[in-house]
Amino acid sequence: MTYAAIARVRVVFGTVGYTLGVTTHRKGSPMSERKINGKKSAQAEAKGHETSLPIPGRPGEATPAAIDNPKADIAALNNLERHLFAHNYASACIGSFSTTIDPVKSLGDSAEVLSILDQENHELLCSTSTGDMLQRLSKHHELLTPVQQHQVRILQRDRNKLIGIPASDQAAFTRLTAESYDVWRRAKAADDWASFEPYLDRIVISTRTLAEFKRPGADAYDVWLDEFEHGASTAFYDEFFAQVKDVVVPLLADVIACGRQQSRQPISGKYDAQRQWALARDLMELEGLDKEAMLLLETEHPFTDSPSTNYGIIASHVYEDDVLSNVFSMLHEGGHALYETNVDPMYNQTSLKGGTSSGMHEAQSRFFENYVGRNESFAPHLLEVLRKHFPGPTGRLTARQLFLVINRVEPSLIRTEADELTYPLHILIRYEIERLLMSGEATASDIPRLWADRYKSYLGIRVPNNAQGALQDVHWAQGLFGYFPTYAFGSAIGAQLCAAMVRQGIDFDGLLADGNLTPIKEWLRINIWQHGRTKDSEQIIQDACGEPFSATYFTDYLVDKYSAIYGL
Amino acid sequence: MTYAAIARVRVVFGTVGYTLGVTTHRKGSPMSERKINGKKSAQAEAKGHETSLPIPGRPGEATPAAIDNPKADIAALNNLERHLFAHNYASACIGSFSTTIDPVKSLGDSAEVLSILDQENHELLCSTSTGDMLQRLSKHHELLTPVQQHQVRILQRDRNKLIGIPASDQAAFTRLTAESYDVWRRAKAADDWASFEPYLDRIVISTRTLAEFKRPGADAYDVWLDEFEHGASTAFYDEFFAQVKDVVVPLLADVIACGRQQSRQPISGKYDAQRQWALARDLMELEGLDKEAMLLLETEHPFTDSPSTNYGIIASHVYEDDVLSNVFSMLHEGGHALYETNVDPMYNQTSLKGGTSSGMHEAQSRFFENYVGRNESFAPHLLEVLRKHFPGPTGRLTARQLFLVINRVEPSLIRTEADELTYPLHILIRYEIERLLMSGEATASDIPRLWADRYKSYLGIRVPNNAQGALQDVHWAQGLFGYFPTYAFGSAIGAQLCAAMVRQGIDFDGLLADGNLTPIKEWLRINIWQHGRTKDSEQIIQDACGEPFSATYFTDYLVDKYSAIYGL
Repeated sequence: MTYAAIARVRVVFGTVGYTLGVTTHRKGSPMSERKINGKKSAQAEAKGHETSLPIPGRPGEATPAAIDNPKADIAALNNLERHLFAHNYASACIGSFSTTIDPVKSLGDSAEVLSILDQENHELLCSTSTGDMLQRLSKHHELLTPVQQHQVRILQRDRNKLIGIPASDQAAFTRLTAESYDVWRRAKAADDWASFEPYLDRIVISTRTLAEFKRPGADAYDVWLDEFEHGASTAFYDEFFAQVKDVVVPLLADVIACGRQQSRQPISGKYDAQRQWALARDLMELEGLDKEAMLLLETEHPFTDSPSTNYGIIASHVYEDDVLSNVFSMLHEGGHALYETNVDPMYNQTSLKGGTSSGMHEAQSRFFENYVGRNESFAPHLLEVLRKHFPGPTGRLTARQLFLVINRVEPSLIRTEADELTYPLHILIRYEIERLLMSGEATASDIPRLWADRYKSYLGIRVPNNAQGALQDVHWAQGLFGYFPTYAFGSAIGAQLCAAMVRQGIDFDGLLADGNLTPIKEWLRINIWQHGRTKDSEQIIQDACGEPFSATYFTDYLVDKYSAIYGL
Repeated sequence: MTYAAIARVRVVFGTVGYTLGVTTHRKGSPMSERKINGKKSAQAEAKGHETSLPIPGRPGEATPAAIDNPKADIAALNNLERHLFAHNYASACIGSFSTTIDPVKSLGDSAEVLSILDQENHELLCSTSTGDMLQRLSKHHELLTPVQQHQVRILQRDRNKLIGIPASDQAAFTRLTAESYDVWRRAKAADDWASFEPYLDRIVISTRTLAEFKRPGADAYDVWLDEFEHGASTAFYDEFFAQVKDVVVPLLADVIACGRQQSRQPISGKYDAQRQWALARDLMELEGLDKEAMLLLETEHPFTDSPSTNYGIIASHVYEDDVLSNVFSMLHEGGHALYETNVDPMYNQTSLKGGTSSGMHEAQSRFFENYVGRNESFAPHLLEVLRKHFPGPTGRLTARQLFLVINRVEPSLIRTEADELTYPLHILIRYEIERLLMSGEATASDIPRLWADRYKSYLGIRVPNNAQGALQDVHWAQGLFGYFPTYAFGSAIGAQLCAAMVRQGIDFDGLLADGNLTPIKEWLRINIWQHGRTKDSEQIIQDACGEPFSATYFTDYLVDKYSAIYGL
């Protein structure tokens, strides 16, 4: 389950005083975190610098600002988008199938192909001619349709994230993280922190160097936080995590102290795998996913990907002893797929397709997983679909019992298995350690101690080894500093969206009680989904909720919900 | 079943006095006939001419013959191969999945992506810089490894097939055939020949024009025969078909006249679809396909594709009332997959991967379908695997009965449903009509009459309508003149290979009786499979059999086999 949360969670954005942004490390393909999945990391996208292939799309070294031939520039823009789309579509398919249906011997070839396609997009986007064309068009909005204006803006932003790093440094980093990934894999299996330590220190140094290339003089961690969430910074995350910590740590302590724990017993039993796949399909229907645009596959670590607005891929997993894992994976991934397949069709085949940010994406998935799926009003409908497929084990289960089981809080060692309340604390711990590493206040050798201290202090549990401790996640081995924090904030957006809907007259609980998701989905479609990447998260929140993002909705939600459940 | 044979059959090659060749319309992706499958035709590969995107890989307009910087040229060669491989790998995956697992709404997007990837490969291969680089390297073999020498030769040949046609003519042809495909589809459904007629006449005229661009002054049909089988011509096919006609037409007449017909009754029954998929997997194992390199999918029209030497995709179909369709589809497709996945791994990720020609490919598939699968010695092993999954319907079936049922001869209207003996006559008819159309001796309005006359004369049956007549195949609507003849010869190679094995001491029937395919496959691997595209069919046959190709092995085989079965 190591990568499950990588595959599931997207980026986050800011609160007051913080410029909200969009993750742009994807260059148009909505779920690049999938590429991490045992194959390659986000930075692999930049390795095109290594090639000697001249860059296509270069119509001569034109003078940037003067626009002599707008028709040619617009044709070049369309042409660029065609090729980016084709490569992104192919990568989404090849990447998704490599962890689902491809035979094992093909995986080396598919990794190579993904790397070449990434390189091609990098070259297309970073070529001088593309830069000049985008710059000329950006200064002549009067020549562009509104859609083209968005394309130029988003493509320029994507390009700026990639352009500064020298080929040799990027190549060295790619080699280092590829090697580190293997070392990490073995270290995790052998619970051998010492073997991984020197690699982690080298990665930290390299990420600092790359950050300096990207934004000379800036704080390195700020640069990487921004990499994964446009506009994010330590200033923002410090404030955000402080607010979460202040609420969640004492709330969790109260939950544990109260001694009232819901047993898993009412849902226990053996749930046939074949029937669980039929259940999974019914859950897709319950969420209202378009059957003619969806493919459901089996995989080890669930994910969603979307080659085009007409094509959503959900890959999931069933465990015969844990039917709830299936239920909430499907509701979660279905949220991602609803977003991707409900982007305005006119943005398909352009850089504007797909979700606007990881944070906004995760808001959708968590919305259906938690705000809908773990809502007491909706429990009778979940129970109904469970009973349809498993009348035996769920025959005597009540909706109230189901609600309590699916909202059971329990501190645990493994982030990806954490419940709704403890999850942000797992992220908080990683954020604090990353911050110390990037500032030079700690090195890799300090991590086991930092990890153990914080798990004890925030979650009240003892870490027995590094395999279940700091070696559990792949991110650092792949050089992904600044990525973890985006997870913690995903859910927070959903709480605010929920509150906004209610304020605007949507009878949220009543609709869930009726099993009628249509008005809720229509609100999300109009306010969020249809816009694709044309609106940043900040603007979406402002327009949809009438105010900037605030984490208070999230902390209030957690306090209210878990105080009620545990009778605090 | 219209496209089944397109997906299954490859190219053919010549006899004495005819330069054997390799099909090069694929540019490295082994089974481009799949692209015909409802999406696009072979000529779509050339439509890149339309684009305004400058051609990548152009390191300046170097002087062709002088080689100043061999290192740079070899780097450019490797770089070209990387990009061609990535695009071909992606196309093989996207193409295969579009007719198997992709959701219906995604098909427009996947068609667009396939077209863009084709265009990219066309531009890469046809750029001036690629031409110059290949020419320089071809004149300096002393600088190249043997593998690189093959790469340069094959890439030059692939390039030469594409380079001569002006963009505007190619684009017009692509538009015409796209339109014609839709007209044909409706015409076939409505049995409306008249609506298709004007399109077919226009296509014939266009193919003549394109042929003139490809090889000025040459006979147009010769050009197109060569397009689908390097080195083929009307001179060769006239001789080949004359030999086949002289033997098969009277042989078939004797079979029909003898009045001894094997009933299908012994194998009739209902064969559960789910169990048939288990049977299909067992047949893959019986053929010795590598499970770790194979993917089995469900589709309407069976096909095999192969993104890399490590990845074979078989797509098949099961009918609950026809278990034999499953058995022989799997044996046939398995032969293709054995070829593709047994190419020397050192040719993977280059233009040398994949089968050397359509004829040689079909020789492999027909080998396992007919020479192995329909051999009386092998019948007990087929029966065993059938009985394992279907003990009821096959419980009382004998191996002799099974052998007779699977070799039942019956003249029929539909090419793709034809038995081993009548199949070449279906192709002969198409060849004769194509020849008349291309020479101007007939136009589209003559076809229904030409068709009916020949089906009566060669097969002894009456054609009741055009839907079951000249509208049954998609090829002409897609502008694929010269493609059909390659089908008729596919099987002929297999007969000669079989005879060579026996001459070289392989106890063919004895091994089949033992169910031991290993020595037979090893002979094929060493003599054919491992060479990929490095050896042309002519050389393969000469080296493997010690003589040039001869159709006599095929006609003798048919006479011996069917005389024995029908007691003639």
